[in-house]
Amino acid sequence: MRVEDLDTPAIVIDRRIVEENLKRAQEHADRQGKRLRPHIKTHKLPMFAKRQLELGAIGITCQKIGEAEVMADAGIADIFIPYNIIGAAKLERLKALHERITLSVTADSAETVDGYGAAFTDASRPLAVLIECDTGGGRCGVQTPAEAVALAERIGAFPGLRFGGLMTYPPRGKAGEVDVWLEEALALFKAKDIAVERVSVGNSPDFYTSSTGDAATELRPGTYIYSDRMQVAFGHGALENCALTVLATVVSRPTPDRAILDTGSKSLAADLSPAPGHGHIVEYPDAVITMLNEEHGIVDLSRSANKPAIGDKVRIIPNHVCVVSNLFDVVHLVEDGEVVEQAPVAARGKLS
Amino acid sequence: MRVEDLDTPAIVIDRRIVEENLKRAQEHADRQGKRLRPHIKTHKLPMFAKRQLELGAIGITCQKIGEAEVMADAGIADIFIPYNIIGAAKLERLKALHERITLSVTADSAETVDGYGAAFTDASRPLAVLIECDTGGGRCGVQTPAEAVALAERIGAFPGLRFGGLMTYPPRGKAGEVDVWLEEALALFKAKDIAVERVSVGNSPDFYTSSTGDAATELRPGTYIYSDRMQVAFGHGALENCALTVLATVVSRPTPDRAILDTGSKSLAADLSPAPGHGHIVEYPDAVITMLNEEHGIVDLSRSANKPAIGDKVRIIPNHVCVVSNLFDVVHLVEDGEVVEQAPVAARGKLS
Repeated sequence: MRVEDLDTPAIVIDRRIVEENLKRAQEHADRQGKRLRPHIKTHKLPMFAKRQLELGAIGITCQKIGEAEVMADAGIADIFIPYNIIGAAKLERLKALHERITLSVTADSAETVDGYGAAFTDASRPLAVLIECDTGGGRCGVQTPAEAVALAERIGAFPGLRFGGLMTYPPRGKAGEVDVWLEEALALFKAKDIAVERVSVGNSPDFYTSSTGDAATELRPGTYIYSDRMQVAFGHGALENCALTVLATVVSRPTPDRAILDTGSKSLAADLSPAPGHGHIVEYPDAVITMLNEEHGIVDLSRSANKPAIGDKVRIIPNHVCVVSNLFDVVHLVEDGEVVEQAPVAARGKLS
Repeated sequence: MRVEDLDTPAIVIDRRIVEENLKRAQEHADRQGKRLRPHIKTHKLPMFAKRQLELGAIGITCQKIGEAEVMADAGIADIFIPYNIIGAAKLERLKALHERITLSVTADSAETVDGYGAAFTDASRPLAVLIECDTGGGRCGVQTPAEAVALAERIGAFPGLRFGGLMTYPPRGKAGEVDVWLEEALALFKAKDIAVERVSVGNSPDFYTSSTGDAATELRPGTYIYSDRMQVAFGHGALENCALTVLATVVSRPTPDRAILDTGSKSLAADLSPAPGHGHIVEYPDAVITMLNEEHGIVDLSRSANKPAIGDKVRIIPNHVCVVSNLFDVVHLVEDGEVVEQAPVAARGKLS
């Protein structure tokens, strides 16, 4: 089947571009002497996680236990969940996961550490707990290196836990400040004679454009596999390097300068990017998707020399691709315009 | 099980508030002498669609064939899809649906009408096609009453179709202009001696606050069943009338004035409302959810006298509830804080 014969809306993934993106990132990490632990939230597909590992990733990153369960079921053996996991139901699932894979998690508080400590009691197989550090991102994380040391000592006091290192979700474009924070923390840990086996730093925007310094040992980008308008705006490659598009049909042309697509916020999501509008229409680069309702995309064609007809199909590069993956049950893989595979988005909708 | 024992994130629906909201809307429509045809995109649940019909709705509205298929499977016999349905795959499914229920659709172009006409050829059971009118909303729709008449004549020329009336998605807060448009169209149709059996007008924001005039015979609100922050901002009831909340856990308290919730854009969606932030925290009304990442909600507690602890669960009224329904596979119904039912969101993710 050709791409243009797919019913819409549909996710279309160019396998050749994915492969290029995966290789480029692995080579970049290798060149920097860093380990790559890709975040699978972007694709949520076991086959791509496996390919990332084949190319040299040391393991994967999942944000939710449900995602990790799907990936473990698919045979992936090393998973990091950089999240404070709290509550009896989740800790039970975490224990089951720990039985079958190499698992690591994070904590940024005594409460989270104590929860892990009460649930994990087997000293022969301790759970690796990294400490999340707020290096300026303003999300989770201990606020000072001294707090990190205190929390590491608390982790060390539980027989079923072990201190697994430091983790941060850094503020975009501030790698220098992040390094200062981490280096200060490492010096403190050294003074206390506590080994820090791993320093995991992760976001996508800074993966290519800034040096991560000497502190980081592991990088956790996610979006690079597909890229999107936001990544392009951040300076990572061009629109041609975007592997995922949403195929849409023009369902209405009510005025000479207006088209309506059958892709609204239910398929493109409402996330904004620095570029104008709600996605880039590949075939009509000067068109602007000015508004999304749930099932309608409203397109301004006033700057387009060419204009689509009712029934035409177009491909849209989303503003933020990770959230789009979460809205579709299946994706279509294409090579040279031919649909070669349809895959369920196995880790879609895993909220807990 | 009590609400607070649910794992998070979870959708929690107060059945008593749903029942009040459904009854109030039906009574309002009855008082205005209008038929109610609720849009099910808000709940996507057959059980609530059935309850809407029991209370007096004449049928339901779905935006996608996939939603209509789910509702038809559940026994619902009268469904309106106010959408230009285009392409062979969709028209095949539409024909199958037409075989088993009372179905109506819309068109705003000759192309869409001709597609229906080619697919539907049984003159003994013609498909009802309403004409979508752009009465100022700037989405789909014919631009003038004269175009509407021409399109009705085109519909009438196909043996397998019949002209089903007029439909509009009106601009918010401009009921007067909408009426002028529709009255002018009705006069033109009358002059041509073409009966207009139905004038379907629909959005949620104007359902309670503006008179829909004499032209409309049928109203298609959706959001009223749950309500949300946006509806409250539009003047429809209070936060206490919001039936759906997202239960979240406080996973981090990195600073005295910051809390992090396990609900990000993957569960609350990124839609904005006139009220500040990404949702209203019921237990901490002065807290502001200042930012959402996919799996994190960042909360500013600086104006909250009380502040939650790590592990506490809170309930969030979303900005836009319809898109939240589409992000969860199941919902939990509660009465007096007790979980009385768990239901799959049967029409979730039906994109085509």
